[in-house]
Amino acid sequence: MATAGKVIKCKAAVAWEAGKPLSIEEVEVAPPQAMEVRVKILYTALCHTDVYFWEAKGQTPVFPRILGHEAGGIVESVGEGVTELVPGDHVLPVFTGECKDCAHCKSEESNLCDLLRINVDRGVMIGDGQSRFTTGGKPIFHFVGTSTFSEYTVIHVGCLAKINPEAPLDKVCVLSCGISTGLGATLNVAKPKKGSTVAIFGLGAVGLAAMEGAKMAGASRIIGVDLNPAKYEQAKKFGCTDFVNPKDHTKPVQEVLVEMTNGGVDRAVECTGHIDAMISAFECVHDGWGVAVLVGVPHKEAVFKTHPMNFLNERTLKGTFFGNYKPRTDLPEVVEMYMRKELDLEKFITHNVPFSQINTAFDLMLKGEGLRCVMRMDE
Amino acid sequence: MATAGKVIKCKAAVAWEAGKPLSIEEVEVAPPQAMEVRVKILYTALCHTDVYFWEAKGQTPVFPRILGHEAGGIVESVGEGVTELVPGDHVLPVFTGECKDCAHCKSEESNLCDLLRINVDRGVMIGDGQSRFTTGGKPIFHFVGTSTFSEYTVIHVGCLAKINPEAPLDKVCVLSCGISTGLGATLNVAKPKKGSTVAIFGLGAVGLAAMEGAKMAGASRIIGVDLNPAKYEQAKKFGCTDFVNPKDHTKPVQEVLVEMTNGGVDRAVECTGHIDAMISAFECVHDGWGVAVLVGVPHKEAVFKTHPMNFLNERTLKGTFFGNYKPRTDLPEVVEMYMRKELDLEKFITHNVPFSQINTAFDLMLKGEGLRCVMRMDE
Repeated sequence: MATAGKVIKCKAAVAWEAGKPLSIEEVEVAPPQAMEVRVKILYTALCHTDVYFWEAKGQTPVFPRILGHEAGGIVESVGEGVTELVPGDHVLPVFTGECKDCAHCKSEESNLCDLLRINVDRGVMIGDGQSRFTTGGKPIFHFVGTSTFSEYTVIHVGCLAKINPEAPLDKVCVLSCGISTGLGATLNVAKPKKGSTVAIFGLGAVGLAAMEGAKMAGASRIIGVDLNPAKYEQAKKFGCTDFVNPKDHTKPVQEVLVEMTNGGVDRAVECTGHIDAMISAFECVHDGWGVAVLVGVPHKEAVFKTHPMNFLNERTLKGTFFGNYKPRTDLPEVVEMYMRKELDLEKFITHNVPFSQINTAFDLMLKGEGLRCVMRMDE
Repeated sequence: MATAGKVIKCKAAVAWEAGKPLSIEEVEVAPPQAMEVRVKILYTALCHTDVYFWEAKGQTPVFPRILGHEAGGIVESVGEGVTELVPGDHVLPVFTGECKDCAHCKSEESNLCDLLRINVDRGVMIGDGQSRFTTGGKPIFHFVGTSTFSEYTVIHVGCLAKINPEAPLDKVCVLSCGISTGLGATLNVAKPKKGSTVAIFGLGAVGLAAMEGAKMAGASRIIGVDLNPAKYEQAKKFGCTDFVNPKDHTKPVQEVLVEMTNGGVDRAVECTGHIDAMISAFECVHDGWGVAVLVGVPHKEAVFKTHPMNFLNERTLKGTFFGNYKPRTDLPEVVEMYMRKELDLEKFITHNVPFSQINTAFDLMLKGEGLRCVMRMDE
């Protein structure tokens, strides 16, 4: 392409400081270096994690920064050593990578790549410790190796899943993070059997994706647990058959669930990150075979506490990260699930706005309205 | 048989009160009622659990009682409705049963039978709430449905595994409890892969059986963890390649293990029941794929505590009971493993005494000498 090897000037949404509206401005995007790829972003969605690091409450503030990590794009040019991707390839950027060379990548079970594991504090490329973004001659920091709130971005090749070019990027872009995280937690880790009972804690996008996974796996009873009763109606579209609001009960919610299910649910998936919900999710699974899966990220000071007999009675507790999907190896197949109409993504996309209105997307999320807001970069 | 339907007078070791030497005396054993089987015990071994309930520290005291639950015997007669066993069948009594009809028995994963799950406080048969043992006209209580410290005992058919009559009962009797518990924890639950690294916490009979399982599964590095350094030498016979004594280190033993193994062990099996060891066993497994399995029974007040990120980083914690073996369905095959020489039981049997010297067996266990003491009933 004509732009290969050259600096590209384009629009990006820059977060100059914590909690202040993003500012759309022209930035320079340097060419990709060794093992890097420059990607033209076509669609990007907003995820809670973007908001979390934009608010930077209790986090190391890294500003100015270009946030964004759920997106779909097309390879513009590739750096030295990149052989798996060529300009024109359709890709999903992922906030955690797959080097294919470390012990984790070589393990069948793990997706916690040693080289490219998520690092929320790093604002630079791992190759040379520099940023590829500048404005007015000053560097702007990257975010989780993706920084998709920019028309062009530079990403390590290990953080890009090459997908079917027929797949509509305005839909499959949501597989970059939240939807895959929830879906994989159920399909890859909890693995409910056909006809089983599954409890989902937290009915945001991740929880509803976990619920969708339970429905796809053939669970016959799916219990949504959320403090907000308004979530039930929406959750029904994702297979929710029962709803429990812990606030409606004086006893711990795990006891309510155990009573409702004659001994406990077969699987529980925890998507809130609240420690009490984690403990409830574990303690509500049936002895003998119950499996609870933790997805939500806890506070640094959180302590998981339970009586060890709850384990001895043959319960299992597991955690997962990005639904145990290896980004490069597994994500293309998740896209194919969508293409075969086994997975419905449309119902997760409740809002669409032009990229220029990115602060509207932030407002929607802060108000808790909708699930995913997809932004079109060309507007 | 000539004795069927009649009361049998025979010798049994009666525990009259907590912590006092057992007394061998003549008892009457009533005929088996519906779904019960009267078994002639040929060999019985002593397990920690017998000693624990004999000491009755912090337990509900149930005396007088006939203890004993690791044994091998031959069916003498059967009660109404028993169709799976006939007089002459060789059987292993098991302290927990398998009714084959409840949700647990019908589950592929669970062995926590609803009807016949271990109940340490019950001293009577579940059919009629009565004891089958008397002496001088007074009832003597049963223990965990087995009471094998008697030449004859009455057991629910669901607590008897019918085994190959060629199998030597003086050897396979140890599969009734401890050895199967440890072996199954590794083979059925931890499931280490060939070439993997496994840590075993607690090198008593159960821990060494778990270690034997790791060796059978092809683990290439097996790390024994015990507070008693004298355990290492014996553990080598069970595949122990490394030994760690937590007392030798100032840092928590999980950190020692993580450093020794470049990030953690692949599998850990906890056989002590101490809460600190449980936490260490979990926290020493590798992120991404590590699995820890709890076997040892904790104190009633114990609390398992860990940072939930230890789960989120793709570690798994499971508990097991009787090695997840279903007594009737699975134990016959464990006996066959011994018959095919895949499993060596001889090295677990460090002592043999006549039944009349049962208090010697108690002394050996209280002193921590040896692993299993097998008693011959006919002497």
